[in-house]
Amino acid sequence: MDKAAFHKLSYGLYVVSSRKNDKFNGQIANTSFQVTSEPPTIAISINKQNLTHEYIEASRKFAVSIISKSTPMQFIGKFGFKCGRDINKFENVNFKLGEVGVPIVLDNAIAFIEAEVINQMDCGSHTIFVGQVKDCGVLNDAEEPMTYAYYHEVKRGKTPKTSPTYQEAPEKDKRKARYICSVCGYTYDPGTGVPDSGINAGTRFEDLPSEWSCPICSADKAKFEKEQ
Amino acid sequence: MDKAAFHKLSYGLYVVSSRKNDKFNGQIANTSFQVTSEPPTIAISINKQNLTHEYIEASRKFAVSIISKSTPMQFIGKFGFKCGRDINKFENVNFKLGEVGVPIVLDNAIAFIEAEVINQMDCGSHTIFVGQVKDCGVLNDAEEPMTYAYYHEVKRGKTPKTSPTYQEAPEKDKRKARYICSVCGYTYDPGTGVPDSGINAGTRFEDLPSEWSCPICSADKAKFEKEQ
Repeated sequence: MDKAAFHKLSYGLYVVSSRKNDKFNGQIANTSFQVTSEPPTIAISINKQNLTHEYIEASRKFAVSIISKSTPMQFIGKFGFKCGRDINKFENVNFKLGEVGVPIVLDNAIAFIEAEVINQMDCGSHTIFVGQVKDCGVLNDAEEPMTYAYYHEVKRGKTPKTSPTYQEAPEKDKRKARYICSVCGYTYDPGTGVPDSGINAGTRFEDLPSEWSCPICSADKAKFEKEQ
Repeated sequence: MDKAAFHKLSYGLYVVSSRKNDKFNGQIANTSFQVTSEPPTIAISINKQNLTHEYIEASRKFAVSIISKSTPMQFIGKFGFKCGRDINKFENVNFKLGEVGVPIVLDNAIAFIEAEVINQMDCGSHTIFVGQVKDCGVLNDAEEPMTYAYYHEVKRGKTPKTSPTYQEAPEKDKRKARYICSVCGYTYDPGTGVPDSGINAGTRFEDLPSEWSCPICSADKAKFEKEQ
């Protein structure tokens, strides 16, 4: 069994959000598809350990905010690698409460779908929730949706050679080591830097300030290991 | 409710196949995601009216063949718009029987996932099947997976202006009318032609031979209507 096959499935990237009483939470998910058109229903798959799972179980409502290709890594890191038990993820994030009363992300979102749970299936570590769509809309038609492939290949600094944005790294950069976050797997590539947060291409890992942290999961610089 | 929001969800494009006794069938689907990693499971959503649904119900087994970006429209049309009750879709298609005994498509496929159904959920017009993966593998690592967005925007002849492959149509072509298949919605664009089947860009719809048929669903030329 060559599990690399799983990486050939194509996905988008979404913020799935819900509420429990007056508390909100949201998380990054790549697993969502429309199930039926009459009535419109949508499926999501959520890990049972996640706070968003607890909130969906409680309120039976969720929203899927579809984020744009230009979404900064920090935003994905906040919703994807932080836990809502530790922080209020919606602090400093623009959102609105829609038809069903759960937060719809407005920052970096190009569309939203709100639903009420009508069915669910226990799948071990995850639950598939099917929701009947109560409202949906386009927020920004000028930007393309973020895909999981794009996030992995471009946003993490690994640009495929076939991509129009690929640039051959200068010889000097090639000798600089890449470092991998032991928490979330993010690769710091000195040939790319982290333009989103002002780290220019060409900055060696060793030259990053000691208070620098992973742009995805905020792990300390010390959590990074040199790529073998 | 602006249903255009649904089109912002990202999907791949797959041949989902199954068997019933000694008969095989397969269909195009865009709805599949991995659900859990331990054990590896995968979800698919299938319309109850489809023959593949009947076969999965009967054998409790299915395979997902992930097709490449370069898959010709005719191949997608055969699996997507023909019915297995009328034709044997696997005639003249290279396939293998894998671990669970259902056909894995080899033509145009870059990877496959085989599974046995362990759970299912009735969703009205569709059923979501969850299968435990019994085998999976990569068939062609050099090609990218077809995405639903790519299929719609490029394969149907509508190339977005932001695409590197976009070419401004010559003035002469712009005056040529586009024709839409009333069966499957395929748009014949004379500015693009159907390079897959030797119809060069610049060929007017009126100049296509009378025996020409829709490259997606094989509907007769007479089923096409001029775009308004």
